Amino acid sequence: MPELRQDPVVGRWVIVATERTRRPNDFADNHNHVSEPKINPFAEGNENLTPPEIFAIRDSGSRPNGPGWKVRVVPNKFPVLRVEGNLDKEGEGLYDRMSGIGAHEVIIEGPQHDLQLEEQPLERVAGVIETYRARMSDLLKDMRLRYVLVFKNFGREAGATISHPHSQIIATPVIPKVVNEKLVGALNYYEQKERSIFADVLKQELKDSHRIVYQNAGFVCFCPYASRFPFELCIMPRRQLADFYRIESDEVLQLADILKISLLKLHRGLNQPQYNYLIHTAPARYQKKDYWATLDQDFRWHIEVIPRLTQIAGFEVGTGFYVNPVPPEDAAQFLKGVEV
Amino acid sequence: MPELRQDPVVGRWVIVATERTRRPNDFADNHNHVSEPKINPFAEGNENLTPPEIFAIRDSGSRPNGPGWKVRVVPNKFPVLRVEGNLDKEGEGLYDRMSGIGAHEVIIEGPQHDLQLEEQPLERVAGVIETYRARMSDLLKDMRLRYVLVFKNFGREAGATISHPHSQIIATPVIPKVVNEKLVGALNYYEQKERSIFADVLKQELKDSHRIVYQNAGFVCFCPYASRFPFELCIMPRRQLADFYRIESDEVLQLADILKISLLKLHRGLNQPQYNYLIHTAPARYQKKDYWATLDQDFRWHIEVIPRLTQIAGFEVGTGFYVNPVPPEDAAQFLKGVEV
Repeated sequence: MPELRQDPVVGRWVIVATERTRRPNDFADNHNHVSEPKINPFAEGNENLTPPEIFAIRDSGSRPNGPGWKVRVVPNKFPVLRVEGNLDKEGEGLYDRMSGIGAHEVIIEGPQHDLQLEEQPLERVAGVIETYRARMSDLLKDMRLRYVLVFKNFGREAGATISHPHSQIIATPVIPKVVNEKLVGALNYYEQKERSIFADVLKQELKDSHRIVYQNAGFVCFCPYASRFPFELCIMPRRQLADFYRIESDEVLQLADILKISLLKLHRGLNQPQYNYLIHTAPARYQKKDYWATLDQDFRWHIEVIPRLTQIAGFEVGTGFYVNPVPPEDAAQFLKGVEV
Repeated sequence: MPELRQDPVVGRWVIVATERTRRPNDFADNHNHVSEPKINPFAEGNENLTPPEIFAIRDSGSRPNGPGWKVRVVPNKFPVLRVEGNLDKEGEGLYDRMSGIGAHEVIIEGPQHDLQLEEQPLERVAGVIETYRARMSDLLKDMRLRYVLVFKNFGREAGATISHPHSQIIATPVIPKVVNEKLVGALNYYEQKERSIFADVLKQELKDSHRIVYQNAGFVCFCPYASRFPFELCIMPRRQLADFYRIESDEVLQLADILKISLLKLHRGLNQPQYNYLIHTAPARYQKKDYWATLDQDFRWHIEVIPRLTQIAGFEVGTGFYVNPVPPEDAAQFLKGVEV
């Protein structure tokens, strides 16, 4: 059974994922190497190689767990957290732990192995976003879960172990540390100014304009002022909304457009770099806390895209202090100019 | 001129290192690839290939910037921060920035290219630690600097670009985010209990014993309870001391012993993995703040060692939520058993 453990000094929760445990000797033999399965379990026709599907966008007349789908969601075969069981919290001497309750799902972004998300037609990208929305909405009904994390790893160094286009969802019984910091930062700003920091950032970016890569009716894509990584992107909605899963249908299409174009610009401009993206959204709010009273006004969901063009050095992980060799203004001007 | 920029939501400072800027096209051609210089600038006899030395442990009779040294400190040829200039702080619309004042030095750990730090005799390792101490002590005299970060990247994926054994020092005009979180965590604990969280962690580890890898008279090496990475190590002094640079001569030798043995266990047990280590120490305290009043009692310097055996996925960087596939108890038992 996996478990969650808390760092006693900084409060960070870590998943000790016993389902994925490798013997120490495996690491000696096989540095950093996870081999791809010989038969692609995510391809159309291989539906029997995954656990039964949870959700799918299917052609009419097709049957669950058979061919004829556009997007397919299945449980991760080697989940880092498990749905079954009670959320037991306990002390262990000085330390705090809880059972590894949660969900870990895979969103297969299309039936074809060689067609990346950004290369798919707009309505297919919209289908993937609609799937994120539906799964997040469903998972938040589970009262044991506090946060639903939607993310994508593209490329081996970005953490992907299967190259067929896919995203992942991890739903957790705790709020991730950085999410909490963003919530607190947004609240503190709101308490001082009665404005959303995200609204002010967007306004500043539109005014400065030289960090903007692309924009449409609903969204703006820019290189953040304090980018940690070369060509880091933020996709920010124009509408104040804390919860990603509450986006409207027209916003799904606009988001598909900006996500497709942003990723295509990275793909074509930087020769298909490895990358991660993740959706930052508000946590579940079953436990009412004072500091969530203004959350719908102070916090805004957004997407972070992190190309993996430089190594993440240990001191950056250890200190939270990043060195970025490309000014975000230069990165934005370059990407803005990439034809897609 | 490099600059520091602050993230407006979470307060994280980032260095935009203009001295290292690569043109956007370089990234397209050359993913993740930094080639090693053809002639090793850190080898004995090549002293003219580095900037003039700042500090060295030399054979008697040898001359600065010539052969005959055991440890040699030089400015980084491509520094992320610069010593020259004033520390100007300014707003830029909504945002905050300051000039990239600081220091970036390289500690060359020995004259031989192929002898890793852990393979050197004990007194040589002690010389490297003595050098860390001397440089930190010296840099903290610069009133513009708030923190001195000592770290080592071993291996390309850990961020090293030159394979000759070396460590680095970056001195910054701000306190790194994670360091600040540790300071605040330690203070909060002390205010509640009037005890150091680090003392309590060490006591718990010695009592539980199954996460301990090695110990000597002055130090304990253990796999932290909430390890983020497989085989992550913490080297903790038994003596309560906030500032690394205040260690005594006998502690330098004891630290050399535990660092050498810990790194040798990783090297031999895991087939010389890439790794990072960093020294967490207290910041400079020119600006007196209330929350530093008890810092000498509540905070304790320590070393984090992070082997790079798994990829750091973007969602881990983006959320601060780590998945560790090896329980620290298993990692510790394995390393404890490695003969060195």
